Amino acid sequence: MSSERLIYLPLGGAGEIGMNAYVYGYGAPGKERLILVDLGVTFPDMDTTPGVDLIYADISWLKERADRLEAIFITHAHEDHVGAVALCHEMLGAPIHARAFTANIARKKMEEAGHPEDAVRTVSAWPEQVKAGPFTVGFLPVSHSIPESAALVIDTPAGRIVHSGDFKLDTTPVVGEPFDEALWSEVAKPGVKALVCDSTNVFSPHPGRSESEVGPAITQLVEQASGMVVATTFASNVARVKTLAEAGHRAGRSVVLLGRAMRRMIEAATETGILTDFPRVVSAEEALDLPRQNLMLIVTGSQGERRAASAQLARGKYRGIELKEGDLFLFSSKTIPGNERGVIRIMNQLSEKGVDVVDDSNGLYHVSGHANRPDLERVHALVDPQMVIPMHGEHRHLREHVKLAEAGGRAGVLAVNGTMLDLSGNAPQVVDYVETGRTYLDGSVKIGALDGVVRDRIRMALNGHVIVTVILDEDDEPLGEPWCDTMGLPETGASRAGLVEVLEEDLNQFLMRADVKTLRDDDKLEEAMRRIVRQSAQIEIGKKPEVTVVISRMK
Amino acid sequence: MSSERLIYLPLGGAGEIGMNAYVYGYGAPGKERLILVDLGVTFPDMDTTPGVDLIYADISWLKERADRLEAIFITHAHEDHVGAVALCHEMLGAPIHARAFTANIARKKMEEAGHPEDAVRTVSAWPEQVKAGPFTVGFLPVSHSIPESAALVIDTPAGRIVHSGDFKLDTTPVVGEPFDEALWSEVAKPGVKALVCDSTNVFSPHPGRSESEVGPAITQLVEQASGMVVATTFASNVARVKTLAEAGHRAGRSVVLLGRAMRRMIEAATETGILTDFPRVVSAEEALDLPRQNLMLIVTGSQGERRAASAQLARGKYRGIELKEGDLFLFSSKTIPGNERGVIRIMNQLSEKGVDVVDDSNGLYHVSGHANRPDLERVHALVDPQMVIPMHGEHRHLREHVKLAEAGGRAGVLAVNGTMLDLSGNAPQVVDYVETGRTYLDGSVKIGALDGVVRDRIRMALNGHVIVTVILDEDDEPLGEPWCDTMGLPETGASRAGLVEVLEEDLNQFLMRADVKTLRDDDKLEEAMRRIVRQSAQIEIGKKPEVTVVISRMK
Repeated sequence: MSSERLIYLPLGGAGEIGMNAYVYGYGAPGKERLILVDLGVTFPDMDTTPGVDLIYADISWLKERADRLEAIFITHAHEDHVGAVALCHEMLGAPIHARAFTANIARKKMEEAGHPEDAVRTVSAWPEQVKAGPFTVGFLPVSHSIPESAALVIDTPAGRIVHSGDFKLDTTPVVGEPFDEALWSEVAKPGVKALVCDSTNVFSPHPGRSESEVGPAITQLVEQASGMVVATTFASNVARVKTLAEAGHRAGRSVVLLGRAMRRMIEAATETGILTDFPRVVSAEEALDLPRQNLMLIVTGSQGERRAASAQLARGKYRGIELKEGDLFLFSSKTIPGNERGVIRIMNQLSEKGVDVVDDSNGLYHVSGHANRPDLERVHALVDPQMVIPMHGEHRHLREHVKLAEAGGRAGVLAVNGTMLDLSGNAPQVVDYVETGRTYLDGSVKIGALDGVVRDRIRMALNGHVIVTVILDEDDEPLGEPWCDTMGLPETGASRAGLVEVLEEDLNQFLMRADVKTLRDDDKLEEAMRRIVRQSAQIEIGKKPEVTVVISRMK
Repeated sequence: MSSERLIYLPLGGAGEIGMNAYVYGYGAPGKERLILVDLGVTFPDMDTTPGVDLIYADISWLKERADRLEAIFITHAHEDHVGAVALCHEMLGAPIHARAFTANIARKKMEEAGHPEDAVRTVSAWPEQVKAGPFTVGFLPVSHSIPESAALVIDTPAGRIVHSGDFKLDTTPVVGEPFDEALWSEVAKPGVKALVCDSTNVFSPHPGRSESEVGPAITQLVEQASGMVVATTFASNVARVKTLAEAGHRAGRSVVLLGRAMRRMIEAATETGILTDFPRVVSAEEALDLPRQNLMLIVTGSQGERRAASAQLARGKYRGIELKEGDLFLFSSKTIPGNERGVIRIMNQLSEKGVDVVDDSNGLYHVSGHANRPDLERVHALVDPQMVIPMHGEHRHLREHVKLAEAGGRAGVLAVNGTMLDLSGNAPQVVDYVETGRTYLDGSVKIGALDGVVRDRIRMALNGHVIVTVILDEDDEPLGEPWCDTMGLPETGASRAGLVEVLEEDLNQFLMRADVKTLRDDDKLEEAMRRIVRQSAQIEIGKKPEVTVVISRMK
């Protein structure tokens, strides 16, 4: 038995918030049978990933060991946990286990990608368990900002692990199961080796607030509104959507759900029986016939996404509906760091339309879905594990969470993506570092983050692009003059002459004097011409552009 | 007299926070003599302005009327108020008036750009006044987050205007003049036609806090630190820099100023006599010989700027100094919306080094430099103007500020950039809309925001770039096959063949079948080839790239 070990290896989600993917393994070193917990995406931005559609963890390590992968378990249906299941299905192939609501969402992704839906298997909540090689895994209900979030109870020959998933301690969550302290105690009772734990809100000093706390303020706000009311939140926050819809309903307004994700989430929650008494909704078409003061729109796009309903309503119309002076727009959401510009853009566009915008700057209309610092302490005490392994956090969150665990007298370890831990002993041991990274879905192609593709895009965006074309005849003599095209560069520079003309003149001067050795050597010629373009451009426009040199030879 | 009028025209700063530029005019319509208040910049970002160095207001309107421009007045030395003085000097030429500290900063900009420093003239505080055509302008001291901020008292034949500049109501500002209610009352006494007023913090519901309030918390934090202490704040916040330095000094630490802006601001404050008892500083070189627990670094880069001292210290060394486990890094600053990613990147890099990061999430170590909502109400009442014209704010801020003014029984008007107001009567009248916009400093070239240069860069960043080269012989027949180069695109797509090869093959197929009419017409040929590349790429990689087609003809 001592030759077998229990390992933990985050491939994504540890050292970042996003693209969660955590591997557990049990067996002889190098021969462990594996399970994967969560398989999510993260979202691109112009600063680092222009043009990219989605980002997920580089799962090469797992793909090479796909024959040892017993199963995939998804804790909940947020995109950063479930978003990559269809993208990776061909590479991994293992069955995907999830609770009903999560499975519903995962199946739709599989269906859209043309994969078999039956690869996704529905599991009931604890005490049901799934056998997966040496692992026995159960879904322990926990409150979060989406229905049926679950912690995983992972039983292994080396002991029990509790993988928290994303969670908060909410005893009145509006939709779904409240946090059940007694049930958690029961699970913890046999002894827990490791608590692998959400770190998102480790810097938030006060106990977390319940989802039910926002109801009264939202209800009051909607009651007092005189024009159309629009509210945006994450579509997956079904409890919040329900609170918003009920506030509208109570104020005598017809509820309209706008945005694909909004309709899909409510559909999934209804199909799985989670949502039973949602107010009747009307379609956008029906809404057009109703007085605006009788409408309550609940829409996607709380993060300022350009194509979502919020952004479209702010710019103009969405499905025929247009906002006007005196309407009210509520952000029942927190802006995720990095999305501020997009959200503020929408706020100002709404302001230009005369719409009153209410956001959550005073904490009235939104609560977080993650456990705050005192809640984490409470869960550490409740689960009472031998060791705490912080996950779901940037480096600073993981580091702080380790400190918190240690302050509570428990072994903690900071394991970022790629850190393989052996959990078999009394304290976690780092046994390996695995190369990890990010894979980009770019259009329909998967590219590696380090392939240079995105780097080149960023360079073109920062520096512009010059294309040089030169034709050489059979004797390696220039045939005519070189030709320049530019993209993303000003037309004229310091000399007031056209930039293209200046560059062509400088290149021509060079070609006329170039020796045969250079003219015969594509690499040399290209390098020399690139240098000339960059130097001349620096003088003319104060900028060194990217340069592509196309040499055509007549022979 | 009734044929003369008093006009107000914001060219920048109204409908955004940044690049302030406000025109006032007096005279017969179309012949008004003009003054300009502030001439600032705003900063580019990857989302909208990749590769751009600085952004400032399009001053074409003013340039065309430069002969009528009497003078430029700069309220304070923040970059969004003074940053474009040197960039625009040749176009405008008018003398620049400012108080000593601001003039010091403006002169350095002029000097660096090779402009005459004596174009900048130092003015003492109120009651000194400057005559500028029909205007008489005085600098009324007011507290802000930089020394010698001033409101302008602008006397015109049509009455007195108070242009607030950026301000807060701070009676204990640590450095510089406290807010002097009596002096403001005195200025208001003769009656004020219009208060043109900072709107930045109109959504902040509580009275603003004094700069002096952060001293005790900072002092305590530094006293308790055991390793090196690094603090970052805006270099121009001389009071804060002093508070930080004194906290270090009191804790027995030698103070080191790192970053060009940090040294320049302290130098300017010392040269102008504003800063008299700043603790002795040591150089980075001297610091290397001192124990780390005896050091207090005050550094630039509180907004996560990649090239500033903070970012360099987070990545590695800065001037030989390196942070280590147990050091403390304080953000004595607020992150401006849009800069979150950069700041968080630094926090995580510091976390990786084992440095404890303290930010202002609990409001202990930073206060704002702008008047909050109750402060604005107080100033409205104190100045008691006929009308309030909100400036220095996004659309939503201006709109809210108008509401606030109206709630106080005063005429308010929402005038965004380009809105020309006639202030001569009892209420402001919109008399014209002037075309405004943004000018980009891009390398050494000034380009218009709508020139398409930046749009092309964004497109290349999102879509990649394909370059197609084709040579046609004397008979308009293709000479050899077409040639493709790509930049910012994956090498292979759906067919598993090289993307370039697929594109070349498709282009060749097309060329072999193309009719003479197409082959003879550059525009037609280019358009057809562009379409083929975009279609083929869409099939191969799910993306339609930007395409440059270079056609070379042998005739």
